[in-house]
Amino acid sequence: MVSSQQRLVAEKLGIRKVVTVVGASMGGMQALQWAVSYPDMMDSVVPIIPLGRTPAWTTGVLEMLRQGIMADPRWNGGNYPSSQPPEQGMRLWSGWLSGVIVRTPGYQESLFPNSQDAIGYLKGVQDAGWRRMDAVDWIYQSWAYDRHNLGATPGFDGDYHRALKSIKAKTLILAGTGDLLNPEYEAMEAARFIPDVRYVAINEKLPMGHVSGAGISAPENELQNAEIARFLEAVTDRGRKIQ
Amino acid sequence: MVSSQQRLVAEKLGIRKVVTVVGASMGGMQALQWAVSYPDMMDSVVPIIPLGRTPAWTTGVLEMLRQGIMADPRWNGGNYPSSQPPEQGMRLWSGWLSGVIVRTPGYQESLFPNSQDAIGYLKGVQDAGWRRMDAVDWIYQSWAYDRHNLGATPGFDGDYHRALKSIKAKTLILAGTGDLLNPEYEAMEAARFIPDVRYVAINEKLPMGHVSGAGISAPENELQNAEIARFLEAVTDRGRKIQ
Repeated sequence: MVSSQQRLVAEKLGIRKVVTVVGASMGGMQALQWAVSYPDMMDSVVPIIPLGRTPAWTTGVLEMLRQGIMADPRWNGGNYPSSQPPEQGMRLWSGWLSGVIVRTPGYQESLFPNSQDAIGYLKGVQDAGWRRMDAVDWIYQSWAYDRHNLGATPGFDGDYHRALKSIKAKTLILAGTGDLLNPEYEAMEAARFIPDVRYVAINEKLPMGHVSGAGISAPENELQNAEIARFLEAVTDRGRKIQ
Repeated sequence: MVSSQQRLVAEKLGIRKVVTVVGASMGGMQALQWAVSYPDMMDSVVPIIPLGRTPAWTTGVLEMLRQGIMADPRWNGGNYPSSQPPEQGMRLWSGWLSGVIVRTPGYQESLFPNSQDAIGYLKGVQDAGWRRMDAVDWIYQSWAYDRHNLGATPGFDGDYHRALKSIKAKTLILAGTGDLLNPEYEAMEAARFIPDVRYVAINEKLPMGHVSGAGISAPENELQNAEIARFLEAVTDRGRKIQ
């Protein structure tokens, strides 16, 4: 999932070692993959709302999102002109993904005490978000998302736990409480096997789910900033190690 | 939501009093509505995986399901011949509703340790389930589901908690832990205000969500049967009151 990135960084940019690899969601999955694939290339990793391997729930959600796109007559096997994207399918994609699955029941209720307001909200999310990605691009990304499994990294023979135990980088996992895209129990399970790890649940008071890793509210931004700052201070010996 | 049922029972069948009103999911919502609308007509109610009022999350899920159906070119404003139902839309409906939302991440993982197996499973659910409902019928039911709120019962002026407090029937609520269609916190909140209530979470060990109320596994069937049997023994004074 990250080998082309690594070649870019190492071969083109000539960078042999980094202080940290940080990413959220699929970026968090990639941060973990970096740590397993290139254990000597970084001091630390900060996977945010990540997965170490993709569970059946997530694959099911992604499959339904793909089906919604592919049901659009404009999909046409992916051979649509860029001027005529599968708008209806991408509106379903945007509503389900950004409007429903990355959130939680309790968070929605806190935003919309009147349940009927969820309908206008969803339509706004769809208007704003359906063009955010190209449909073919997203579908290929989703297939990579589906198949993510650190145990499948060359050298580990499918042994997921051995892959996690091989991580040398100091690790800070920030997980989304109630996350319905990347279930938090997967992040917890990963943390049980990574040798040097700190695990922090974002928003334990109001579980916001996957969006809690996306900077959606001031308190969770502050929590993440404070945690990452403290972690990097330790990794870099208060900045001395990167001078 | 239940006035036509009540007229059938009372006026056509001539039944003036029942021992209990039982139902699951939308049936559980109706059981609570019976208890608020016709408080002297029953000794007890058993709402299973119910809602006392529908939250924004549920309305959002139902709206996306409706949109998936209506995006099918065969939908045609609901004017499709019965021989040509909106199959593609109903396949999305069946996959999302029966395959994803009524379950939980952990339950899916317990069934499919290999996440890619979720895809074949979903297709099986869709093949088996898409004809289960007529699309127009379901959409109208979903609008009623959306608007459910015990506080809207005539005489309560929108006061949800007063409606709950007015329930005279002994009440047994069976709620689905991790339920992503009818969130369990709504059932808990209802239980806080119903005067004579017992609240039981189904499957606390493996939260199965909404399907935990649907008789999907032997242990949760046994739990429900045992709880309901014990409850009805008390309501009927070991059967003496209905002789």
